Amino acid sequence: MTTKHTDTVGKGSLHVIKIGGNVIDNSENLHHFLKDFTALEGHKILVHGGGKVATQLADTLGIESKLVDGRRITDIETLRVVTMVYGGLINKNIVAQLQRFGTNAIGLTGADGNFIRAVKRPVKTIDYGYVGDIKNDSVDAAAISRLMEAGFTPVFCALTHDGDGQMLNTNADTIASALAVALAKQYETTLIYCFEKKGVLQDINDEDSLIRDIDPVRYEELKKQQIIHSGMLPKLDNAFTAISCGVKAVIIGKADELGTLQKNEPFGTRLSK
Amino acid sequence: MTTKHTDTVGKGSLHVIKIGGNVIDNSENLHHFLKDFTALEGHKILVHGGGKVATQLADTLGIESKLVDGRRITDIETLRVVTMVYGGLINKNIVAQLQRFGTNAIGLTGADGNFIRAVKRPVKTIDYGYVGDIKNDSVDAAAISRLMEAGFTPVFCALTHDGDGQMLNTNADTIASALAVALAKQYETTLIYCFEKKGVLQDINDEDSLIRDIDPVRYEELKKQQIIHSGMLPKLDNAFTAISCGVKAVIIGKADELGTLQKNEPFGTRLSK
Repeated sequence: MTTKHTDTVGKGSLHVIKIGGNVIDNSENLHHFLKDFTALEGHKILVHGGGKVATQLADTLGIESKLVDGRRITDIETLRVVTMVYGGLINKNIVAQLQRFGTNAIGLTGADGNFIRAVKRPVKTIDYGYVGDIKNDSVDAAAISRLMEAGFTPVFCALTHDGDGQMLNTNADTIASALAVALAKQYETTLIYCFEKKGVLQDINDEDSLIRDIDPVRYEELKKQQIIHSGMLPKLDNAFTAISCGVKAVIIGKADELGTLQKNEPFGTRLSK
Repeated sequence: MTTKHTDTVGKGSLHVIKIGGNVIDNSENLHHFLKDFTALEGHKILVHGGGKVATQLADTLGIESKLVDGRRITDIETLRVVTMVYGGLINKNIVAQLQRFGTNAIGLTGADGNFIRAVKRPVKTIDYGYVGDIKNDSVDAAAISRLMEAGFTPVFCALTHDGDGQMLNTNADTIASALAVALAKQYETTLIYCFEKKGVLQDINDEDSLIRDIDPVRYEELKKQQIIHSGMLPKLDNAFTAISCGVKAVIIGKADELGTLQKNEPFGTRLSK
């Protein structure tokens, strides 16, 4: 498949879409989402995180989840589990489903094609184990572009490598953002984070209070009014960083509403310049 | 990486190499093999089977290995295990190692890129479960070629899909042979089966009794003399079938001697027309 439309400045369009556990863990949600993903025109990249399966498998194997200051430690046993579950079970089942719907997907880790090379997080006060941090030059945008131009749709899981034979566990949000930034030079890139809410809400308890558009000025206001706080802050800070690095827009929305995007209807909260 | 040399008829060269448990289960053997694989010029495809890890994981998870008439049954639980171990753990570790040595590998199942679409084995007297049989049109040679021409080296594990969302377990020898036959039109293709012996032996107990070359005439003689019998017969029958379908040669040899091939020295037993 090639890009069906190009935008006004002549760049092809690219959507980088990240899904998490709330989509992956529910086969009906996943089915629905993958159909909508397939309907989306232009180039696209899917990035998926883990889900309950990895935790369940680790539990069954008697591997203890180690958390330090609320952050998960990836010891060698945990790395084996996530390599199996993210890179094998989840990734290949998503690919097989996408093929069914007509998307010519290829399932990938950062090691494949040397697409995303990370650096094992240095030990300071905490040893996070086999966790890979993304650097400025981590993503080989030209190689990913070659793969897409050859007709394939990349499906990345939350794994990278260090280039020296070691697989590493890397946050899926971070991978999605790094991919979008790296490819923004070549494509008109929109980064989409699917999550459990409809988007950024004026009132966290009211799904109808969705804020449709946020630009940097509005963002400052919302922070001052304490409408955006705590957990959403790092997410939105990272989104605006991606935008300042060339990503056209970042959308935060509900996975089951992705279809509205194809109909050119508003979808989630759109962050842009 | 592109083909460094082409043969006399102008086709690029391609090696399809299959490794099994005796290479995968031993990190030193694997390391050695992957270095030699990297040194091999021209296009190449690696195909790997399982190994002990899948059996060990199934045991730990309390999944019983079901054998009927000596053949393994892939029930849904076993399929989950092999998707994790073949498609995740083994495949991605091989890819990460190859990247370390400089081979731009991409790890694949048949679902990725829709490269190998199989048919779930029909239930006759035995229900083999989620086992995929390869058909004449199973392999999309053009798509695999596009991937290779874009600079990537495919690493296939023993998994395919049915095109309708279902992953399937498929014998790695069969996958290697199907790939070699399908790509033989476009590349001057050599199929290499790495196994525990140096090749076909005149005397099974004497590694020095290696038979260097076998053509169809010699093959008939060796069968008559009962030098080739039992377990080797189906392997060699399949090899000669691949040759009659356009594969230039099939080599059966020891993984740790692959390096001799690059030096243009004889390697294993070479079957050809």
